[in-house]
Amino acid sequence: MTYGTIATWRMAHEGVIKANELLKKQGTAGDAVEALINTVEAYPYYKSVGYGGLPNEQGVVEMDAAFMNGDSFAIGAVAGIQNVKHAVSVARSLSHDHFNSFRVGSGATQYAMQNDFEIVNMLTPRARKIWQNRLKEMREKNLNPYDGHDTVGAITLDLQGSMAAATSTSGLFMKKAGRIGDSPLSGSGFYVDSEVGGAAATGLGEDIMKGCLSYEIVRLMADGKTPQEACDQAVYPFIEKLKKRYGKAGEFSLVAMNHKGEWGVATNVEFTFSVGNEQKASRILMANPGPDQTTIIEPITQAWLDAYEKRIKAPVE
Amino acid sequence: MTYGTIATWRMAHEGVIKANELLKKQGTAGDAVEALINTVEAYPYYKSVGYGGLPNEQGVVEMDAAFMNGDSFAIGAVAGIQNVKHAVSVARSLSHDHFNSFRVGSGATQYAMQNDFEIVNMLTPRARKIWQNRLKEMREKNLNPYDGHDTVGAITLDLQGSMAAATSTSGLFMKKAGRIGDSPLSGSGFYVDSEVGGAAATGLGEDIMKGCLSYEIVRLMADGKTPQEACDQAVYPFIEKLKKRYGKAGEFSLVAMNHKGEWGVATNVEFTFSVGNEQKASRILMANPGPDQTTIIEPITQAWLDAYEKRIKAPVE
Repeated sequence: MTYGTIATWRMAHEGVIKANELLKKQGTAGDAVEALINTVEAYPYYKSVGYGGLPNEQGVVEMDAAFMNGDSFAIGAVAGIQNVKHAVSVARSLSHDHFNSFRVGSGATQYAMQNDFEIVNMLTPRARKIWQNRLKEMREKNLNPYDGHDTVGAITLDLQGSMAAATSTSGLFMKKAGRIGDSPLSGSGFYVDSEVGGAAATGLGEDIMKGCLSYEIVRLMADGKTPQEACDQAVYPFIEKLKKRYGKAGEFSLVAMNHKGEWGVATNVEFTFSVGNEQKASRILMANPGPDQTTIIEPITQAWLDAYEKRIKAPVE
Repeated sequence: MTYGTIATWRMAHEGVIKANELLKKQGTAGDAVEALINTVEAYPYYKSVGYGGLPNEQGVVEMDAAFMNGDSFAIGAVAGIQNVKHAVSVARSLSHDHFNSFRVGSGATQYAMQNDFEIVNMLTPRARKIWQNRLKEMREKNLNPYDGHDTVGAITLDLQGSMAAATSTSGLFMKKAGRIGDSPLSGSGFYVDSEVGGAAATGLGEDIMKGCLSYEIVRLMADGKTPQEACDQAVYPFIEKLKKRYGKAGEFSLVAMNHKGEWGVATNVEFTFSVGNEQKASRILMANPGPDQTTIIEPITQAWLDAYEKRIKAPVE
């Protein structure tokens, strides 16, 4: 038995370190994945997840999150939830119920309030300022308003052989009220089976749900593919199919880990992620689409990390 | 080229007849599937779809619906929408947008209002009475409140070779506010690819989304299976897996049609459906689970139809 964690984007890294520390000490996959996502949700400079996440066009932060137990397939999910610090914890709590385990809108928020989850105004002054600036830009320059859809999605494997998956996002910046993406949708945003492996997605949810790519990656792993083969074979042909049939394809990035702690990634854009297992410490890597439906994975550079740090903390005028 | 329609439950039958009439006259798969679902949504004696649908525990009718275009994979969906006569038409309208095509809660209702969809109080006096009676029963007998989750889900194939899928439901009777099931979720409640076929589900949404069964059926058809083989091979092994891993499995019924108009069904309960194609007129059939992971399909009896008619129209005291 071994342990391991993989998660989308550089923002997940501190959470991945925390998850692998828990897993090393016999922590459960469920506890580790929740701790990972909670770390990202709490950090105010990440603009697409949790506290500090950017709002919808009306200035309201609406969040989507999900949790899946790879042993039992139990799923909990919330979408369009408001005022909740840790949406993924609400999702995990819902996963314990057989009925009513996916709740949306004010019903989801009610559940969080009635079950004593931390309620805060999720619109930080910084996020409000970014939103106001965007409204102004839209008026002045007639820009496409949509931007930013970086979901944190993660897969964990524990020393008992159990796996879990979870996602959390504030969704597309400037989205219409009540818009949800793939992150809370089983099979699209996430899927995990402890006897096989798990996968999670980030990118344009409206397009990811057209392909059920997380389910397809897990299915390919069940069929004997390595996580990297499964990611490549699920993601790249579907992007081609979508371009042909729908005329275009948004951004897609998927991560996967199998029940042996091996991992894979596929993406059609520059994509950072964090991964670590018993054999190799948690680290940030960068993925890019390669030739012939492959993925190029490289170490991250210090220059990239420095520029990232500067960018996310840049003053907002 | 041929045409055909299949849909879940006896309640879909008048809609299936209408859909096949449209398809015979060169109507599109999208128009036919919307007309089918609209017919079910408008009929006040169907307690689990549209007007006359039973409310959540707070007495509010909250609906879920989806539409998928099998040519382009475009999807529109709504969940937890209120006061809208034809939720599936809202979903279809959303499918034309690349962004914001899945909306939940009050944001979904806002979209319907702003786009001039018919707004009505969906809680009929009959449904209100059934809800009040159930509240009383729950107080007196401490019953499990949940009951009834009959989604109308349908697949259509038109003479141009295009296919569409759609679903509509008021969800689980007495559900918690904001609870949604599988019906609006791509891959779980529905999936369709015009080059392969489509599938749609009804049953306990919380369990159906654990298996992404509509996607899996379409995938098996792409792999060369007939619709009946695909239904049997996707549904029955997953129900066994769920019993083993989750400890139980709710009700599942799936219908499928391929791009040749051939069809299949799988179910773990007594399940009626309606199907017709160019070769054979629309008719109601009954399916039951058979031995060795097969499905037994029989004609419906007049006695069953008479009892059904009597039951749905029985006076509510």
